[in-house]
Amino acid sequence: MNLFVGEISEKGNEDSRFVWPVRVYYEDTDAGGVVYYANYLRFLERARTEWLRHLGFEQDALMRDPGVLFAVRRVELDYLLPARFNDRLEVHSRIARLAGASLDFAQTVVRLDDGAELCRGVVRVACLRADDLRPARLPAAIKRRLTTRED
Amino acid sequence: MNLFVGEISEKGNEDSRFVWPVRVYYEDTDAGGVVYYANYLRFLERARTEWLRHLGFEQDALMRDPGVLFAVRRVELDYLLPARFNDRLEVHSRIARLAGASLDFAQTVVRLDDGAELCRGVVRVACLRADDLRPARLPAAIKRRLTTRED
Amino acid sequence: MNLFVGEISEKGNEDSRFVWPVRVYYEDTDAGGVVYYANYLRFLERARTEWLRHLGFEQDALMRDPGVLFAVRRVELDYLLPARFNDRLEVHSRIARLAGASLDFAQTVVRLDDGAELCRGVVRVACLRADDLRPARLPAAIKRRLTTRED
Amino acid sequence: MNLFVGEISEKGNEDSRFVWPVRVYYEDTDAGGVVYYANYLRFLERARTEWLRHLGFEQDALMRDPGVLFAVRRVELDYLLPARFNDRLEVHSRIARLAGASLDFAQTVVRLDDGAELCRGVVRVACLRADDLRPARLPAAIKRRLTTRED
Repeated sequence: MNLFVGEISEKGNEDSRFVWPVRVYYEDTDAGGVVYYANYLRFLERARTEWLRHLGFEQDALMRDPGVLFAVRRVELDYLLPARFNDRLEVHSRIARLAGASLDFAQTVVRLDDGAELCRGVVRVACLRADDLRPARLPAAIKRRLTTRED
Repeated sequence: MNLFVGEISEKGNEDSRFVWPVRVYYEDTDAGGVVYYANYLRFLERARTEWLRHLGFEQDALMRDPGVLFAVRRVELDYLLPARFNDRLEVHSRIARLAGASLDFAQTVVRLDDGAELCRGVVRVACLRADDLRPARLPAAIKRRLTTRED
Repeated sequence: MNLFVGEISEKGNEDSRFVWPVRVYYEDTDAGGVVYYANYLRFLERARTEWLRHLGFEQDALMRDPGVLFAVRRVELDYLLPARFNDRLEVHSRIARLAGASLDFAQTVVRLDDGAELCRGVVRVACLRADDLRPARLPAAIKRRLTTRED
Repeated sequence: MNLFVGEISEKGNEDSRFVWPVRVYYEDTDAGGVVYYANYLRFLERARTEWLRHLGFEQDALMRDPGVLFAVRRVELDYLLPARFNDRLEVHSRIARLAGASLDFAQTVVRLDDGAELCRGVVRVACLRADDLRPARLPAAIKRRLTTRED
C-alpha cells in the first residue's frame, strides 16, 4: 500500500527540502561545452547521500545494521538548460512519495548565480535487504526523519 | 505539430531496431558490485551514436553541414535487474516518436547470456541549430533513414 | 630554461600547500569496493582547479584574458592504499617544479580519519595559448601566487 | 626478485603486442573538446581486460579460482596529442616487465586514421589474493601466455 504524501509535497517544498552544492569541473563536461547528461545523475545521488548523512544515516552503516541498502528503480529527468564548466549548482531535494519499501525523491538542479532551473526529475529508490537484495521495509527512523520538518 | 508514429512502434519493434553490443568493464561498476545507474545513459548514447553512424550520419559532420546537433531533453528509465562486471550486454533501440524537431528513442539494455531485460526507457532528443542552439527541423534524410525498414 | 624550485619543495611542504576535501561517493567506486583508479585523477584536478580559484584565477576567465589554458602533459601516480565508499579524503597539493611554460603539481590523497596516504603523484601541466594550443608562458601573476607563502 | 624481460621488450614490440580498438564517444570528452585525461586510464584498462580475456582468462573467474585479482600500483602516462569526439583509437599493449607478483604493461593509444601516438605509458599491476588483498604470485599460466608469441 502506497501512501502519497501530497501534504508534504504541497507545503513540503520548503519544509522538507535539502540543498546540496555542486561545482562543475572539467570531468563533468563534454565536447559540447556543457555537463554531460549522465552526470546529472551523479549530482542527484550525491545530494541524496548527503541528505541521509545530514539526518544521521550513513549508507555503509545501514548495510550492516539493519542490513538494508538503496537501489534506484526509476529515473525521470527533464533537461531544461545546460550547465557549464565552473558553474555553481545546487541540488534541491524533497520526498515526493513515500511507500513501504520505496520512496520518490523530487530533485532539481539549480544554477546558483541566476536561480535558473537546469534539470528536474524524480528518482525512485527501493529499499532492499543487503543479504539477498529482496525488498525491505524502509526503516521507520529514516522515514520519520525524511518527512519531519526541521526547526 | 507532433506526429506520433504509432505504426512504427507497433510493427516497428522488429523493423527499425538497431542493436549495439556493450561489455561491462570495471569502470562501469560501483561498490555495490553492479553497473552504476548513471552509466546506463552512457551505454544508451553509444547505441544512438552508432545507429546514426550505421545510417551514414556522423555527428561531427552534421554539426558543420547542415549545422545541427542533438541534445537530450528528457530521460525516463526503469532499472529492472542489475548488470555486473564482465556481462555482455546489448542495447536495442527503435524510434518511438518522431516530431518536427525532436524524436524519442525507445531503448532497452539486454543481457546477452540469458536475454534478461535489465533496463528500459525512452530518451527524447531534440535537434538544435549548432550556431545558436535553437530548435531545428530534423534533417529529412535522417528522418527517412531512421524510420525506413532495412532489407 | 627550467627552474627547479627545490627551495619551495623543501620548506614548501608546509608553505605552499593547498588542501581540498573530497568525499567518496558510489560514482567513484568500482566492483572491487574501492575507488576506481582513474577517478583519483578527477580528484587531483578538482584540487588544482580549486587552488587556482582560491588564488583568484578562474580558468574560464583565463581562457579569454590573457588567452591561456592548462593541459596535462604527464602523470605519475603511485597507488598505495585503496579508498572506499564514504571515505573522507583530502588532496594535498604543492608546486614541485616551475618552468617557463609548465609546472609540476606534487599531489597526495590522504584519508582524513587516520591520515593514511592513499595515492601520491606528480602531474605536469602545460600552459597553452587558447587560440592555437601552442605553448605559452605561464602568466607571471599565477606563477607569483602559486609560489608565495600565504600568511 | 624481479626479472626484467628486456628481451621481450626488444623484439617483443611485435611479438607480444595486443591491440584493442576504442571509439571516442561524448562521454569521454570534456569542454576542451578533447578526451578528458582520466579517461585514457579507462581505455588502457579495457585493453588489459580484453587481452587477458583473449588469452582465456576472465577476471571474475580468476577471483574464484585460483583466488587472485589485479590492482594497479603505479601509472606513468605521457599525453602527447589530444583525441577528439568520434576518433577511432587503438590501444597497443605489451609486457614491459614481469616480476613474481606484479607486471608492467607498456601501453600506447594510437589514432587509427593517421597512426599518431596520442598517449603512452606504463601501468604496473600487482597480483593480490582475493581474500585478504595480500601479494600473490602471478599464476604461471597467465605469465606463460602473456609472454609467449602467438603464431
